[in-house]
Amino acid sequence: MLEILSINHKSEKLESIINRTNLPTVEITKSVEKILLNVKENGDEAVRRYSLIYDEVKLKSFEVSEDEFNEALEQTDENLVNALIEAKKNIETYHEKQLQDGYKINEKNSYVQQIINPIERVGVYIPGGKAAYPSTVLMNVIPAKIAGVNEIVIVTPPNKEGKIKPSILVAAKLAGVTKVLKIGGAQAIGALAYGTETIEKVDKIVGPGNIYVALAKKSVSGIVGIDMVAGPTEVVILADETANPRFIAADLMAQAEHDEMASSIVITNTEEFAQKIQQEIPNLLEEQPRKEIIKSSFENYGAIIVVKTIEEGIELVNKLAPEHLELMIKNPESIVHKVKNAGAIFLGDYTPEPVGDYFAGTNHTLPTSGTARFTSPLNVNDFSKKTSVVYYNKVALSEARKHIELIAEEEGLYGHGKAISIRFEEDSK
Amino acid sequence: MLEILSINHKSEKLESIINRTNLPTVEITKSVEKILLNVKENGDEAVRRYSLIYDEVKLKSFEVSEDEFNEALEQTDENLVNALIEAKKNIETYHEKQLQDGYKINEKNSYVQQIINPIERVGVYIPGGKAAYPSTVLMNVIPAKIAGVNEIVIVTPPNKEGKIKPSILVAAKLAGVTKVLKIGGAQAIGALAYGTETIEKVDKIVGPGNIYVALAKKSVSGIVGIDMVAGPTEVVILADETANPRFIAADLMAQAEHDEMASSIVITNTEEFAQKIQQEIPNLLEEQPRKEIIKSSFENYGAIIVVKTIEEGIELVNKLAPEHLELMIKNPESIVHKVKNAGAIFLGDYTPEPVGDYFAGTNHTLPTSGTARFTSPLNVNDFSKKTSVVYYNKVALSEARKHIELIAEEEGLYGHGKAISIRFEEDSK
Repeated sequence: MLEILSINHKSEKLESIINRTNLPTVEITKSVEKILLNVKENGDEAVRRYSLIYDEVKLKSFEVSEDEFNEALEQTDENLVNALIEAKKNIETYHEKQLQDGYKINEKNSYVQQIINPIERVGVYIPGGKAAYPSTVLMNVIPAKIAGVNEIVIVTPPNKEGKIKPSILVAAKLAGVTKVLKIGGAQAIGALAYGTETIEKVDKIVGPGNIYVALAKKSVSGIVGIDMVAGPTEVVILADETANPRFIAADLMAQAEHDEMASSIVITNTEEFAQKIQQEIPNLLEEQPRKEIIKSSFENYGAIIVVKTIEEGIELVNKLAPEHLELMIKNPESIVHKVKNAGAIFLGDYTPEPVGDYFAGTNHTLPTSGTARFTSPLNVNDFSKKTSVVYYNKVALSEARKHIELIAEEEGLYGHGKAISIRFEEDSK
Repeated sequence: MLEILSINHKSEKLESIINRTNLPTVEITKSVEKILLNVKENGDEAVRRYSLIYDEVKLKSFEVSEDEFNEALEQTDENLVNALIEAKKNIETYHEKQLQDGYKINEKNSYVQQIINPIERVGVYIPGGKAAYPSTVLMNVIPAKIAGVNEIVIVTPPNKEGKIKPSILVAAKLAGVTKVLKIGGAQAIGALAYGTETIEKVDKIVGPGNIYVALAKKSVSGIVGIDMVAGPTEVVILADETANPRFIAADLMAQAEHDEMASSIVITNTEEFAQKIQQEIPNLLEEQPRKEIIKSSFENYGAIIVVKTIEEGIELVNKLAPEHLELMIKNPESIVHKVKNAGAIFLGDYTPEPVGDYFAGTNHTLPTSGTARFTSPLNVNDFSKKTSVVYYNKVALSEARKHIELIAEEEGLYGHGKAISIRFEEDSK
C-alpha cells in the first residue's frame, strides 16, 4: 500500500503530493463569515448561541475557574505532570535563545535604533475532543511567554458537560497562561479578533484548528496577526541502507496516524532497501489503533521514492520543503548544510520525529505544504514586533538635506522636500 | 480643513480614521483572480496579452538589457546617483545589524539547533508611472541582499515605449538585483508566483502596488510568501507647545500628499497650540503642487486631537499604532519606552519623516492600519527562514522515552509512542 516510485519517470502521484491542499468548500467559507459577522455584531450572545449549536453546551461563564484548574491537577497522573514539566524546561531552554535585543547606531549628530516590544495580548486556539493535545499548549504558549507577552488567553471548546480535558488545563497552568476560555470554533476566533462584552480583543491569534478555525483565522488576519494557516502534516525520510527499515516504517505511521491527508514519504537510493521498508509495513500496521487512517494516508499521500544518489535525494527534499525531515543516513550531520528548505530536521536512527513533537524543546508548529521555503517554525519573534527610531539634530539634517531633497524631487513629492527645507527657512533670511 | 477634535467627546471621525480600510470591490477581486488563473495556465502568452491591455506595450523580451541599464545611468543626474549611493550605505548599515546567527545547545548525548538560511528567490514589485520611486527599490532589495538571497527579481510596468524610469534602473543596479522584468499588475504577481516559460517562480514577493497588485499578492499568499498587504499611509505627530507649528504643518502635508486616503493626525495638549498649527496650514498649502490631494486627505482622515496630558496622548498613540510617529515634544527620548505600538518613531524638531523615507537607513516599508500592534518594519529576517535540528543518540532517547511515551499516550497517538518503543525492542528480548 506504500507504493515504490522511481524519480526517473514522471509521477502523477508525486505531483499530487507536492500540490495537495485541503481546499474548503464555498459553503464552509460562507458559514464561517456568517459566524464572524454575528460575533462582531452581537458579542457574547452570539458566542453563547454558537456554543449551544456546535458544542452542545450552555455556559454560565466562559472562563475556567481556579477550582477547575485545581481539580484538573488532581485528576492528572503525576508522571504525566512530570513529563510535561520536563518538556516545558526543554522548550524554554531552546526558545530563550531566540530572544533578540534591539540595537542603536550612534553618529555624532544623529542615531538610528531598533526597539523590540512584545505583542501585548495573544490568543491561543487549542482544539477540543480527540485533538486536544497538552503539547500544543506548551508549544504555543511558552514562546509567547518568553517574548514577554502580557496577556495570553487560551480558547478551547469544552465537552458537553462544559469541561476541558484536565491535561490541557495542567499544561496551561504550567505554561503560565492568563486565562482559559471554554469557547471554540470560528466563534472563538471572532471573539478574540473583535472582542465582546466579556472578552477583550487580542493582537494576535496562534494555534491549530479544524477547517472552520483555519478559515476564520485567515478571515480576521490583518485585523489581528495570525501564525500560519497550516496544511496537513507531513514527513520525508531520507534513508540509505545503513538505516533500520523497521524504525522507518514506524516513523511513517507516527506521521500518517494524524490524518488521512497526512503525507509520509521515504526517499532512498536503492530499490532493494525500498522493498525492505515496504516489507515491514503490514505487520507493524496490524497493532496500530488508527490503522484505517494510516492506510488511507499511505495510499493517497505516501510513497517510497527511489533516487540514484543521496545527492539527488537532497535536491528532491529541497523541492518538497517538508515540514519534518528525518535523515537516516550514514553521517547525517555532514549533509545538514545542504538542506535549504525544511521545518525541522531529525538526525540518525534514534531521533524519531515524536522527540521533537513533545520533548526536545524545538517547536512542533512547523511550516507545511512546501511553505518551509519561506516560513520558519513558530518562535519567540512571532510574539514580538520591532519599531525603528530615528533622531537627527539640525546639523545632521543640514548635512543630509541635499540628498533627501534630490530624491524627493525625483519622486515628484514636493511636500517631502518642503518638510526638510522649511526647517532652514529662518537661516536663509 | 484640519479639524480640531477633543479626546473627551466621542468622535465619529476619530472612529472612522481608526477603522478606515480601502475595501476592494468584488469586480476587482474577480478580475484579479481571472488574470492569475490565466497566467498560471498560459504563462508568457497571458503575461504578454495583459501587458498589451494594461500597459499598452508589446515587448520582445521582458528582461531589461545591460544596454538599457547603462543608458539609464547616463540619463540620471550625477547628484541623484550620489544621493542614492549615500542612502544605500545608511540602509546597509542599519539592516546589517539585523542578521541573526543560528545557535546550538549541546547536551552530553543530544543537541538541538537552529539554522538560518536565506530564502532562495525573491520577487520585488515596484510600481510604475507617478509612483515609481527609486527609494522603494533600495528599501526592498537591500534587506534581501543582506539576508543572502540568491536571486532578486524586480517586476515593474514600463511606459508605452517599453521603458523603465532611469532612476529605478540605477537604484536596482546599485542595490544589486539579479534582473529587472518589464511587467506589472496582477499578471506580474502571477508570473512570479507560478512561473512561466521564461520567468522562474520565486519563493516570496514583496513591495508595494495598487489595489490589483495588493489583491494578487493576497491571493497567491501561501503559494509564495508575501510581505504585507499595506493600507494607506499615515502619520501621527505628538506635539507640545515647545514644537514649531510650521514644521508640524509641513510634515502633515508630506504625509497627505501621498494619497487621498492618507491620514495625518496631530495629538497635542492645548487647544491654543492646536489652533497655531491650524493657522499655518492655508498659507503652506498654496505652494503644494498636490494641494487637492492634501485637502481631501485632511478633510477625510486628518485631525488635530486635543488631549489633557501628553501621557493621555501616548495612550492614544498606542491605540492608533501608527505607521509613522513624530514625537515633537520636550525631551522626546524620555518617552520612547512608553510607545508600544508604532512602525517608526521620529524624534524632535529636526527629524521629519522624509528623513526615514529616504535616508536615515531605517526601512520605509512599515506596518499600516494599526498592524504595528503585531507587525514589524520590513527587515532582514523577512528574507530568511529558520530550520530546527534535533539529534538524540540511543542513550538520550532511552532517558527521554518514558516522558515521550506518556505524553503520546495521553494524546491518544499510539504510533507516536511506538516510534519510540520500537527502537528498544531488541534490548528487551
